[in-house]
Amino acid sequence: MADSIPKKYKACIYDEPGKVSTKVVELDMPEPGPGEVLINLTHSGVCHSDFGIMTNSWKALPHPTSAGQVGGHEGVGTVVSLGPGTENSTVKVGDRVGIKWIAAICGACPACLTGHDGVCFNQKVSGYYTPGTFQQYVVSAADYVTKIPEALGSAEAAPMLCAGVTVYSALRKSNAKSGEWVVLLGAGGGLGHLATQLASRGMGLRVIGIDAGSKKDLVMESGAEHFIDHTASKDVAGDVNALTGGLGAHAVLVLTAANGAYASGMTLLRFGGTLVCVGLPEGELKPIATAFPQVMVAKEQKIVGVAVGNRQEALETLDYAARGIIKTHFRTAKMDELTSVFGEMERGELKGRVVLELQ
Amino acid sequence: MADSIPKKYKACIYDEPGKVSTKVVELDMPEPGPGEVLINLTHSGVCHSDFGIMTNSWKALPHPTSAGQVGGHEGVGTVVSLGPGTENSTVKVGDRVGIKWIAAICGACPACLTGHDGVCFNQKVSGYYTPGTFQQYVVSAADYVTKIPEALGSAEAAPMLCAGVTVYSALRKSNAKSGEWVVLLGAGGGLGHLATQLASRGMGLRVIGIDAGSKKDLVMESGAEHFIDHTASKDVAGDVNALTGGLGAHAVLVLTAANGAYASGMTLLRFGGTLVCVGLPEGELKPIATAFPQVMVAKEQKIVGVAVGNRQEALETLDYAARGIIKTHFRTAKMDELTSVFGEMERGELKGRVVLELQ
Amino acid sequence: MADSIPKKYKACIYDEPGKVSTKVVELDMPEPGPGEVLINLTHSGVCHSDFGIMTNSWKALPHPTSAGQVGGHEGVGTVVSLGPGTENSTVKVGDRVGIKWIAAICGACPACLTGHDGVCFNQKVSGYYTPGTFQQYVVSAADYVTKIPEALGSAEAAPMLCAGVTVYSALRKSNAKSGEWVVLLGAGGGLGHLATQLASRGMGLRVIGIDAGSKKDLVMESGAEHFIDHTASKDVAGDVNALTGGLGAHAVLVLTAANGAYASGMTLLRFGGTLVCVGLPEGELKPIATAFPQVMVAKEQKIVGVAVGNRQEALETLDYAARGIIKTHFRTAKMDELTSVFGEMERGELKGRVVLELQ
Amino acid sequence: MADSIPKKYKACIYDEPGKVSTKVVELDMPEPGPGEVLINLTHSGVCHSDFGIMTNSWKALPHPTSAGQVGGHEGVGTVVSLGPGTENSTVKVGDRVGIKWIAAICGACPACLTGHDGVCFNQKVSGYYTPGTFQQYVVSAADYVTKIPEALGSAEAAPMLCAGVTVYSALRKSNAKSGEWVVLLGAGGGLGHLATQLASRGMGLRVIGIDAGSKKDLVMESGAEHFIDHTASKDVAGDVNALTGGLGAHAVLVLTAANGAYASGMTLLRFGGTLVCVGLPEGELKPIATAFPQVMVAKEQKIVGVAVGNRQEALETLDYAARGIIKTHFRTAKMDELTSVFGEMERGELKGRVVLELQ
Repeated sequence: MADSIPKKYKACIYDEPGKVSTKVVELDMPEPGPGEVLINLTHSGVCHSDFGIMTNSWKALPHPTSAGQVGGHEGVGTVVSLGPGTENSTVKVGDRVGIKWIAAICGACPACLTGHDGVCFNQKVSGYYTPGTFQQYVVSAADYVTKIPEALGSAEAAPMLCAGVTVYSALRKSNAKSGEWVVLLGAGGGLGHLATQLASRGMGLRVIGIDAGSKKDLVMESGAEHFIDHTASKDVAGDVNALTGGLGAHAVLVLTAANGAYASGMTLLRFGGTLVCVGLPEGELKPIATAFPQVMVAKEQKIVGVAVGNRQEALETLDYAARGIIKTHFRTAKMDELTSVFGEMERGELKGRVVLELQ
Repeated sequence: MADSIPKKYKACIYDEPGKVSTKVVELDMPEPGPGEVLINLTHSGVCHSDFGIMTNSWKALPHPTSAGQVGGHEGVGTVVSLGPGTENSTVKVGDRVGIKWIAAICGACPACLTGHDGVCFNQKVSGYYTPGTFQQYVVSAADYVTKIPEALGSAEAAPMLCAGVTVYSALRKSNAKSGEWVVLLGAGGGLGHLATQLASRGMGLRVIGIDAGSKKDLVMESGAEHFIDHTASKDVAGDVNALTGGLGAHAVLVLTAANGAYASGMTLLRFGGTLVCVGLPEGELKPIATAFPQVMVAKEQKIVGVAVGNRQEALETLDYAARGIIKTHFRTAKMDELTSVFGEMERGELKGRVVLELQ
Repeated sequence: MADSIPKKYKACIYDEPGKVSTKVVELDMPEPGPGEVLINLTHSGVCHSDFGIMTNSWKALPHPTSAGQVGGHEGVGTVVSLGPGTENSTVKVGDRVGIKWIAAICGACPACLTGHDGVCFNQKVSGYYTPGTFQQYVVSAADYVTKIPEALGSAEAAPMLCAGVTVYSALRKSNAKSGEWVVLLGAGGGLGHLATQLASRGMGLRVIGIDAGSKKDLVMESGAEHFIDHTASKDVAGDVNALTGGLGAHAVLVLTAANGAYASGMTLLRFGGTLVCVGLPEGELKPIATAFPQVMVAKEQKIVGVAVGNRQEALETLDYAARGIIKTHFRTAKMDELTSVFGEMERGELKGRVVLELQ
Repeated sequence: MADSIPKKYKACIYDEPGKVSTKVVELDMPEPGPGEVLINLTHSGVCHSDFGIMTNSWKALPHPTSAGQVGGHEGVGTVVSLGPGTENSTVKVGDRVGIKWIAAICGACPACLTGHDGVCFNQKVSGYYTPGTFQQYVVSAADYVTKIPEALGSAEAAPMLCAGVTVYSALRKSNAKSGEWVVLLGAGGGLGHLATQLASRGMGLRVIGIDAGSKKDLVMESGAEHFIDHTASKDVAGDVNALTGGLGAHAVLVLTAANGAYASGMTLLRFGGTLVCVGLPEGELKPIATAFPQVMVAKEQKIVGVAVGNRQEALETLDYAARGIIKTHFRTAKMDELTSVFGEMERGELKGRVVLELQ
């Protein structure tokens, strides 16, 4: 196998971080270090978070992106060589695996030991802390890559590794159980349409999707029982109440970045209900405008923040995808089209997801 | 037994709701209706919520208090007769029982059926919706009174039925497990000193009590491992971090009514931690000032509102009290001293709790 | 309304308990007592437990059945009058309601207070402790009858009140989550075909149904992903392993009364899996033959016993039925056909369920 | 640091597996591989499981022990060098760390990914699969060793790493909450006396310890509220019932290897209670003799098997030990006394635990 690994390969780098610009370059083949594997990537999803990293517009990140950074965090490919100490790993040469937003955790910090992968004190974000998946080869942590089920195509798998896993984890942490009502704010978006499919078809939840009217068809096709056009409704809370027997929803997931979605989300909950925070508002930190202690006490309500899913949740998400229960709308593009794809993203013209073909 | 029940008895009424004024009057003995029991009360705690009802200062209540209302919601006495349909009840004539903030629930509404007693759509608040416990006899729901353990004195039991149960329930819902750190904001108050005892001595939690410096002795005697004087500390969050290995607390309970306590509470939490809302700020509704979605997501934190405890929690609280693990500081007073007690409360002069002797 | 209530009505009694014999008689109209309602029944399911009560063949019951006992515990009808103390109940005259296996609980014993309705120390089993549902009128506890959703026919609702609720509760207590594998032993039986529908269509579980080959079509139509004919398979555990990626099922529900099903059930579980006990073997008590501590420790497995569902679970089950997700196969019969129906049951000739039309 | 590492060191090997025989030999210093650290051990507990491995008497193990095997699985020492790929590990040279029964897990198999460390498909049992802790130096997995709190002595820490963690994990999985009754079968044994301390002093549980009468003092000093001498009692279940208000215990932990303890354990449970399997009976597999489906259903009871604790539970156990809440009775011995210690163990003469001093 080693013989077939070239000495050079192609990668897309952020050549001028801060601007919408990428460049295809040739890089030297890396060696997998201890505990690492080398993966020959065939596909990588392009996510809005990549855009934020490229343009340095995401204030939460600890430092500006370096020129030459390879982005991307939804990669799929085949393991081609194993670093030292991976002999007993569950990953073998030839396995098809995926790389996620978090490319590696330490496994031993207080967050890891209590199951909070997304809070790992030493987490490596793919395409920011480490060279990402917009390239033909990548080294990654043997114990953190995710096996792709045989029945699932690589291009189809890519977007599941970020958006899919995130909404899957959020739905689990909502504690809503089958037969209960869940409201999805931003139901027609990249996260939302997957959440709608997972909730309704995968988990037996009853979905009320809320989004702008243009998303209605997508939301209903994705399995929602009801759709509310928040740009047209005069009283979204009243609408939700009417649909849920006058009580409100058991859980509300905020899948958009709008502060307003958080504020209205609380008003859609029934007693004992849970607001799940997923979308990250940009700009200055603002509190959830309706997180009133008095109301939360009187109604015994909860708010819960959900970061990314863990490895097991990734496997479970991919299993849903392999069984055809969830599907992303995407088109493919070539590596040299990446700048153009980011341009569409910047202008708000991008419909659905784009998956780069890397070979 | 029925022969010994007099036709008249003494009660304390709010004769001029809106003012600090009560009056001892004679009332006709009521008959217990279906599902009710008649209780000969011997003791009733006096709680700050009673003050709010008497003075109409509590805006959350649906209507002003009527003149002639008998207040009180921490009553203890002996069952003297049973209404129709209580033959198979677990309560018998001669049982010593307690009455709580919620005197009755319907048991059949969506909230009751899902274990949210405190949200019951038809709840009866003692001393507001129904004649309360500042009187020698009261009728109450056979299935909602709480048996008092033999080993616990009636005066000692009274304050447990409200403050005790509330903090017990809040500690349970914090999901903090033994050995973990819990911060109590207002640790030296009426709720706080009981929470400190329960958490540290009853549940094996490690308590950091926060309050004004004058409360330090009470808090430490109640079992706290550390005390922080929030009026003296320059960096409460830094202090909590230092005491908890740099991580913050697993749970923070807000046991005061200060909006500021809510805001600072969030900053004392570790990743995955839970802020428990108990204290009810007065005045206009304001959001928890630090309930930032971005932070809650990044740290996977939770906020949970807790109303009152349920019947089982009341029994468990009384069991702790009967075993001597929790104790309230209180003095006793007579019925005709009630106005004077409320006067002390109004002037902020009241130390500890007062329990009325009703016989 | 009261005017329309006749003085006499028809009921089916066990005239010779111990034998397969029932008789239609005329009874005096009862008055609802405190906390009770009078219900004009239109339908009652006929369950195998009724057969056991009629014939005194069920050794677990505390005393032999009395001659004149009215059996039945899956009744549906309309509330026609309210007893004292039900004015504030959520049930009103005109409501269509159902009666379940447990017709009343005390609501105040240690079991009730901790959510174990099925263990209530003072429970009333319909058709054994109290006159049951094989009659045109019945009095029942206002707070324990279950409202029937408008969209669900009364005949369709009847069997849900026992079989439906039981399997719903068992599936919940299996702790299997959507996307996980659950094996149903007896998947084609009265409990099993409902469990198959609920699990697969209602909860997103992946079902492997096990039963005799003749049940294959019913099980697959009910939504199972796989069927195993235990009379034909040479290695059921091997089959389950092969279908579940070599690991076994997350949960196994024993929905038959066979001791052998319990023994084999344990062998179908993966590490961490849960065996749920529902079916009650007749005859002498025998331990689960494969409940080996060493294996349960090595595989961190669980066994859990599940009695009946509670009121909330009954509502949730009926909601699934009202939405068309679960359906029972049944035929209707008249009151004077009841003996003949029990005869079919005795001879093992009964296909599906029978619902008595009582009017 | 590396300079101070000698080329040879002393180790105790099983020179004749099957017999009670160990021998101190000199071994070559190993190099830590990728992901491993080299530890200079100072102490190792001696556990009955080591005896089983040495004598090949433990039938559950997959193969006979090899001559030359270094035993031991409760080791404490200082990290002296790091293998490749551990640069970003949380473990540093100079850290004092412990080695547990399971020395390494793969972290990526289905068991690991769902939190079942003790079921890891690729687990390495210390002193059987890998050279153990009866030696002066050992290599071990960087991500699986457990840091020892500063306040805890190394000799004191050693026994916590096996017995302590096991009972801690079992108590957690019992789901008993503070204030509830837990019965410990074998309360005076190596596991039992630690469980008694942890449950009563650490977790606020109410402990009924059951053992032979000679253990009474130890059990009561360890914090039990009651002691039952099972060799003297005529009705242990009756005794437990009387102590628990007629209901039985919320949880029963079987901490001995006796089949009879399992059988009686079930009879001590209240409705909804949980039997926790910890002790491993030797000899042929026998079912829990009182695991009757009918009773488990009627009482809604559970049985749960618990393997070893995980890393987080190990840290939490050591934290209890560092705070002085749990203490093991032990004496120290030298490496060349190990055979003699095992001899005492064989003859049943060993009181408390023995910790080897390795330097």
